[in-house]
Amino acid sequence: MDIRKESLKKHYEWNGKIEVVSRVPINSAEDLSLAYTPGVAEPCLEIQKDYDKSFELTRRNNLVAVVTDGTAVLGLGDIGPEAGMPVMEGKCALFKEFGDVDAFPICVRSKDVDEIVNAIYLISGSFGGINLEDIAAPRCFEIEKKLKEKCDIPIFHDDQHGTAVIVAAGLINSLKLVHKKLDEIKVVMNGAGAAGIAIAKHLLNMGVKDITLCDSKGIICKGDPRLNAVKQEMAEITNLSHLEGSLADAMKGADVFLGISAAGCVSEEMVKSMAKDPILFAMANPTPEIMPDIAKKAGAAVVGTGRSDFPNQINNVLAFPGIFRGALDCRASDINEEMKVAASFAIASLVSDEELNANYILPEAFDKRIGKTVAEAVKKAAIESGVARI
Amino acid sequence: MDIRKESLKKHYEWNGKIEVVSRVPINSAEDLSLAYTPGVAEPCLEIQKDYDKSFELTRRNNLVAVVTDGTAVLGLGDIGPEAGMPVMEGKCALFKEFGDVDAFPICVRSKDVDEIVNAIYLISGSFGGINLEDIAAPRCFEIEKKLKEKCDIPIFHDDQHGTAVIVAAGLINSLKLVHKKLDEIKVVMNGAGAAGIAIAKHLLNMGVKDITLCDSKGIICKGDPRLNAVKQEMAEITNLSHLEGSLADAMKGADVFLGISAAGCVSEEMVKSMAKDPILFAMANPTPEIMPDIAKKAGAAVVGTGRSDFPNQINNVLAFPGIFRGALDCRASDINEEMKVAASFAIASLVSDEELNANYILPEAFDKRIGKTVAEAVKKAAIESGVARI
Repeated sequence: MDIRKESLKKHYEWNGKIEVVSRVPINSAEDLSLAYTPGVAEPCLEIQKDYDKSFELTRRNNLVAVVTDGTAVLGLGDIGPEAGMPVMEGKCALFKEFGDVDAFPICVRSKDVDEIVNAIYLISGSFGGINLEDIAAPRCFEIEKKLKEKCDIPIFHDDQHGTAVIVAAGLINSLKLVHKKLDEIKVVMNGAGAAGIAIAKHLLNMGVKDITLCDSKGIICKGDPRLNAVKQEMAEITNLSHLEGSLADAMKGADVFLGISAAGCVSEEMVKSMAKDPILFAMANPTPEIMPDIAKKAGAAVVGTGRSDFPNQINNVLAFPGIFRGALDCRASDINEEMKVAASFAIASLVSDEELNANYILPEAFDKRIGKTVAEAVKKAAIESGVARI
Repeated sequence: MDIRKESLKKHYEWNGKIEVVSRVPINSAEDLSLAYTPGVAEPCLEIQKDYDKSFELTRRNNLVAVVTDGTAVLGLGDIGPEAGMPVMEGKCALFKEFGDVDAFPICVRSKDVDEIVNAIYLISGSFGGINLEDIAAPRCFEIEKKLKEKCDIPIFHDDQHGTAVIVAAGLINSLKLVHKKLDEIKVVMNGAGAAGIAIAKHLLNMGVKDITLCDSKGIICKGDPRLNAVKQEMAEITNLSHLEGSLADAMKGADVFLGISAAGCVSEEMVKSMAKDPILFAMANPTPEIMPDIAKKAGAAVVGTGRSDFPNQINNVLAFPGIFRGALDCRASDINEEMKVAASFAIASLVSDEELNANYILPEAFDKRIGKTVAEAVKKAAIESGVARI
């Protein structure tokens, strides 16, 4: 089956992948007078008196906006806001299926940071959280930062933080297999876009000390005049031994390779140059940085990819539904570092020591425990870090 | 039962009146690859090539945004955007129940016309239509006008046009009872806000020639320096005999009184001063301009109100679901005058000559024929007036 052709056919049949339904009976004049006028005046006045009641009397307690500007959709690039909507609707379907979160897709017809931020802020009273999606770097960083400053609900750019959470979860379990610890490993990353930078920051928060970040020009090193502001910031907190050179140079002696870059940029020789029992997450889509069989042949202990047709798929769907479920359940004002760290450990915990092996480092997407387990851990971390509001 | 107290209790139980659900199966890795990555890339690219495909491959073909700024919510006034949301969610539930339209509530945190217009325009790619709701006059006129200029989907302010459509439908049938014709009657209206002005314009479009409009200061007459721009415009097209004076002066000899004003402003004497077999729609909520029994005693042939506990409720729910259903079904670029006139006649047609009497001028809200009948008439009018796009 040609998945893409079949998907297009299905999309014509589906007539949209989401639907807005009523949760209340409307079968009589009395029903109307309770759900609508004149009865509805009372909950309105209740919210006017106490803004927080909007989280009890309207659906915003369970509603997340999935927002895109259509500039970095899948690997397709800047295809426009409306063209990004099939992805957003799919994401909303996953939110419902895996987290019982009501998610609604919003595409924004602008590429201007302040215009996007203002539009989303203005409509944020309809929602309990905002999930940013497929917005190009570096604009995505600014949009997220400004929305966090303006809004009183959690703002979460899944391409950054969802990816970071799930990579960390996979890494926690992979390290158990090779008997190495987070604070002892040498990590090399290729790709310094939104996901790469978020992964690096998250791993530093989890206790990793030694990360070397590469982009298409090679190792990112402090003092390099070609670096943009975001990469300069990363150069301050990574590559502590001031390595210069190529990805191949960086990989010598590394314990972990994380690729969020491009097909085929890692060779067998480069894997062979790594430390004993190297771990590789080659997440370029659809073709990984190195194919799993080649990496294994070159000595890799664990290989993960972004694909469902190889073992160890590094898949955000394990993370975002439970993260928002947990944040909504305690009406968190933010999804902070503590909550993301908790989510990584919660996901990792769902693979028992007995089950864990080089071809099974993460739970299956359809494991029914995931959403609940992640939500509980995230909620606990929200309460402990002081961002829970109930 | 105290309806408002009971409604508040129900709202706490309901936990929101709408819900976003998935229309697609997500039970296997194959389901995921069709509804989401990698398959979803294909419908995305299809829309990138042809923008109109967004109406086939995403839910916008059936989605209407119900938008408020919270400034004129029910009779409660400016209670704020979040406080207006219980009404918006109720409206969305009615859209689904009576028109099978997916409607999503959006509250906007601004009272600035251009800011509201820009925010709604920017997110309009997610929707197939925009229903404006409970926005104070005269801002509502400007917002509607500017959105119509910017957007390629129908913009409809229900407080104006939905009310106008249903008032006209009730009037068509009432006139049959008293054997008078639209182009012969003298209509007096009290209330020159959003609804009043829209009703007057709609009746003029339907062939009514003689309308006198009053506000709280009395008859609106050309040349009066106290009139704002909107009322000045109305003074040009109404009150052709240049009447001056009070509402009581205007009502002398009138065939029809339409109140969108305030409780108790019409007396028994004023009804007695009207022409033979007068028709009164006293729509102030919750207390009408004159109570039906008093109006009847004073000689009224037909009395309608906004209330469900009297006969002849003038209720927008008969209009807006079918109007949007019809507009969406032919992907109309606008909801124009022709479509509104068609809706009025379609609603009126659902009361047969045999059924028609002074206590039954409009179909019941739960009459299952309404949505479909209105939709078909509206779609036909859209096609004939050239705004249908399929």
